[in-house]
Amino acid sequence: MARLSPLAFLRGLARIIAARPLIPRTLTDNELLRTVLERRSIRRYRDDPIPADVQAAILEAGRVAPSTVNLQTWSFVTFTRAEWREFFAKPVPFGAAFAVVVLADVHRAKRIVEGFPSVPLCEYTVGVTNAALAAMNMTVAAEALGVSSVMLSETGQTGFYDARYLSERMDLPGGVIPLLTICFGYGRGGRPAMPPKLPVDAVSFTGRYRDTPQTVLDDWYAEMQAGYQVSNLGRSFTNQITHYNRRLAEAEVDLRHLVLGDD
Amino acid sequence: MARLSPLAFLRGLARIIAARPLIPRTLTDNELLRTVLERRSIRRYRDDPIPADVQAAILEAGRVAPSTVNLQTWSFVTFTRAEWREFFAKPVPFGAAFAVVVLADVHRAKRIVEGFPSVPLCEYTVGVTNAALAAMNMTVAAEALGVSSVMLSETGQTGFYDARYLSERMDLPGGVIPLLTICFGYGRGGRPAMPPKLPVDAVSFTGRYRDTPQTVLDDWYAEMQAGYQVSNLGRSFTNQITHYNRRLAEAEVDLRHLVLGDD
Repeated sequence: MARLSPLAFLRGLARIIAARPLIPRTLTDNELLRTVLERRSIRRYRDDPIPADVQAAILEAGRVAPSTVNLQTWSFVTFTRAEWREFFAKPVPFGAAFAVVVLADVHRAKRIVEGFPSVPLCEYTVGVTNAALAAMNMTVAAEALGVSSVMLSETGQTGFYDARYLSERMDLPGGVIPLLTICFGYGRGGRPAMPPKLPVDAVSFTGRYRDTPQTVLDDWYAEMQAGYQVSNLGRSFTNQITHYNRRLAEAEVDLRHLVLGDD
Repeated sequence: MARLSPLAFLRGLARIIAARPLIPRTLTDNELLRTVLERRSIRRYRDDPIPADVQAAILEAGRVAPSTVNLQTWSFVTFTRAEWREFFAKPVPFGAAFAVVVLADVHRAKRIVEGFPSVPLCEYTVGVTNAALAAMNMTVAAEALGVSSVMLSETGQTGFYDARYLSERMDLPGGVIPLLTICFGYGRGGRPAMPPKLPVDAVSFTGRYRDTPQTVLDDWYAEMQAGYQVSNLGRSFTNQITHYNRRLAEAEVDLRHLVLGDD
């Protein structure tokens, strides 16, 4: 899509600034609900470390997350800021105090369950689903403890875009795919605006699939562009998407090799 | 693995009954954290419906969940108990009051973003990851509202095992894959024991991949078997796994067709 007109830019910006999670008026007193709904991805952190008990509670939320057939097809690779720098020979993204690389891991389950058929795409589905469930549960537990976070899959070679690099770096066995990294820390600076979210009736319906009207998609894209320009010093969201697309083409080859065994 | 000896069965059972989430003693007063860590998958519900504001708050947690590049690659298909019965011509699993079929949906994003390359496995990874993040966020929001839930991917044709059936039934366009169904309701009966979870040091580590010792896996499998026998009237977990494996072989063919376009 083309660059926004000044009017569309201002309209998009106004909509972003006004956006809030929709908490039913009858439920605004529910503190945990507010914590879940008002969570934001935070990309600026104070230097303070995260105490050991808080780190342990965050990992526990990953350990006790639900999973298909309780197979717990995940592994969590933890790094303090210093450990990340030493292991990867570069700084942790956004100066996070604590980072967890979340792996979709069916390797362990396959060691236990005999006669597992060769179903790589199903295994990957189970692995990715469960790993993401654990990631979200860790993130919410962190919020409950006053710890902010952001999940990364591309920035700084932290997720499935760089599955091959991370696999080699961490000596991952077959059946273990790096999915994303959660950066944790105590946030600093102002609370960022909510990223533009599609309206609830665009993403939910009953029964048969309902396609989203084009005008709703156009509005959303205008908000994404306006928000991106403001928060990234005039850079274009469209250019960013083009960048992602180039990287995705490479990632596809690597993932097909790691997940499906394709050459 | 073979059927358990009576001694291994009793040991496994004792360990299940004793299992609790490990909440650091310094943090036990944190009610939000307890809600996240003490959540259980619940499969018995009272008849009571879920009020409209509570349903709305649960869906809102899906809508505002984090997602890769904020692409919101999910759709939520909602059903009350009566709507499920009418649409699928069978009862909703476990008599849930409200059910949400969570779809991994890159179809919408591809309508917006021009020049998206053909990267089906990356698209699927993004779709499944984001859909699972939204599912977990909805589940935690429900807990905050006193609503219990269970996520299903196989039971009652509710998830990726039955992707082809659900796709046809719901008229899903290409790029939309049914992942799982969340059953919601007000729980009844006692609180079930925590399913056997691997110890935290078996699933987390720093730096290079660390394989789980075989004895830890054996203990876990014994717990799974013992727990399964008790909660399913003597049925064998091993037999259940064999059943899943048969279904997985069929699901693999369907998923490859839907996700990768394989014939």
